[in-house]
Amino acid sequence: MRIIHTVREMRDYVRGVKLAGHTVALVPTMGYLHEGHLALMRRAKERCDVVVASIFVNPKQFGVGEDFERYPRDMARDARLAEEVGVDAIFNPPVEEMYPAGYNTYVEVEKLTEGLCGAARPGHFRGVTTVVNKLFNIVQPDVAFFGQKDAQQAIVIRQMVADLNMPLEIVIVPIVREPDGLAMSSRNVYLTPAEREAALVLYRTLQRANGLIMAGERSVPAVLTEMRRMLEAEPLATVDYVEIRDAGDLSVIDTIQGRVLVALAVFIGRTRLIDNLLVEV
Amino acid sequence: MRIIHTVREMRDYVRGVKLAGHTVALVPTMGYLHEGHLALMRRAKERCDVVVASIFVNPKQFGVGEDFERYPRDMARDARLAEEVGVDAIFNPPVEEMYPAGYNTYVEVEKLTEGLCGAARPGHFRGVTTVVNKLFNIVQPDVAFFGQKDAQQAIVIRQMVADLNMPLEIVIVPIVREPDGLAMSSRNVYLTPAEREAALVLYRTLQRANGLIMAGERSVPAVLTEMRRMLEAEPLATVDYVEIRDAGDLSVIDTIQGRVLVALAVFIGRTRLIDNLLVEV
Repeated sequence: MRIIHTVREMRDYVRGVKLAGHTVALVPTMGYLHEGHLALMRRAKERCDVVVASIFVNPKQFGVGEDFERYPRDMARDARLAEEVGVDAIFNPPVEEMYPAGYNTYVEVEKLTEGLCGAARPGHFRGVTTVVNKLFNIVQPDVAFFGQKDAQQAIVIRQMVADLNMPLEIVIVPIVREPDGLAMSSRNVYLTPAEREAALVLYRTLQRANGLIMAGERSVPAVLTEMRRMLEAEPLATVDYVEIRDAGDLSVIDTIQGRVLVALAVFIGRTRLIDNLLVEV
Repeated sequence: MRIIHTVREMRDYVRGVKLAGHTVALVPTMGYLHEGHLALMRRAKERCDVVVASIFVNPKQFGVGEDFERYPRDMARDARLAEEVGVDAIFNPPVEEMYPAGYNTYVEVEKLTEGLCGAARPGHFRGVTTVVNKLFNIVQPDVAFFGQKDAQQAIVIRQMVADLNMPLEIVIVPIVREPDGLAMSSRNVYLTPAEREAALVLYRTLQRANGLIMAGERSVPAVLTEMRRMLEAEPLATVDYVEIRDAGDLSVIDTIQGRVLVALAVFIGRTRLIDNLLVEV
């Protein structure tokens, strides 16, 4: 497995791969890999001849006061895990390779980025779409893989690719969970044992919402009220948002019909966790 | 010569061309072609095997109250002229093919777009970078050609390509002028005979600035004062801006040294014309 640090070397690598007639997959990550990332990489390897994983903690998607500096990093472990699942190359550029002095260009998806995580994290999705746009241009993959865990990000990136006519396919891979239901996240490492236990309230709340909907509840306010009640009963939890939106365009809905996204963001202590469930009725 | 109206057909065309091992040039235009455009196309044909010219009057780069609706169009004439200089395909999509319902994504270059034409035309460059980004993704050219006439646009597009790591080269082609010095522009058609005569003040003023600098003047304010004096002496002219900037990064300068851009935008009657001169001392 190659580890590549510069745009130029990455381009040369991909040019060689494409000249050999191989298809290329990209799995963009911020590293500190867990089973969720590895599921993306396995799917990528099934689909394409060559898998490139990027590992780049993108400063432009962190807000002021967020955890950019302390975001967990372990490149040696990441490289071992990626190699085990068949990744062919890791693209791991330094920040100044991606954002040299005088950097001035941003890609922004409007409307879809206004609510949910976009409301709590202004500028976050602008940072995400900008870096993902760059990564697509550098690696020029045939297919790129993202996790359903970041549901809004997935929809925003699909929209960017469609709107800007980027020549690649986006595949969204289901959430991978710990045996007790907690969604895999690099940020889970921040949790104390008591917080780790309390964090289960996210998945339990989603399960409760699913149960209500399966039992016939179609009122969005009714389901949200019950979800808030459960979350607020957990002393270590502080709700950022709980929402039910149309799963296609994230529009606000009052009645549950078709495919809906049940999504929440909750602080457990100081750690902000997100989770979601797609429900179809 | 092929005339193509859809993104899908454009992609198929380019895929075939690339599979055949040919290089591809793109010349983005808003049509109503003049010798300036044709110079870009000839340069493109010298450089690449296949030349695609896009003809698309991009609504997103026109401000409220600007001339989108009345911008001159003549597709039959454009097709004939393009074919004569060896263009292989024209990409001429309808507006809804480029901006379908629900379109939400914008590419923005900051700082470089703040002064000059960016000050007078808020949102203009955002519209330009967005459509050019799309055209690059649709056509995937090896080289794209732009005119020095739109000096700020050329610098902004170069920055976008560098910042977003777009895999192509940008070539800037010198201004083509009428025999009397007026820079070629599709908007020259708006001018009455008296305005056409008055419009010569743009080039004469640039020539005067060049003369002063060649004679040793190094003070930006001194040159600008003389330029304003000349422009204001023309009754049909209303100055939008007259500026001398660093030609590399458009930074504001007080002293003329190295490569500088002498740029102006002037209303002749109701028609806004721009022109510029690169000077190296």
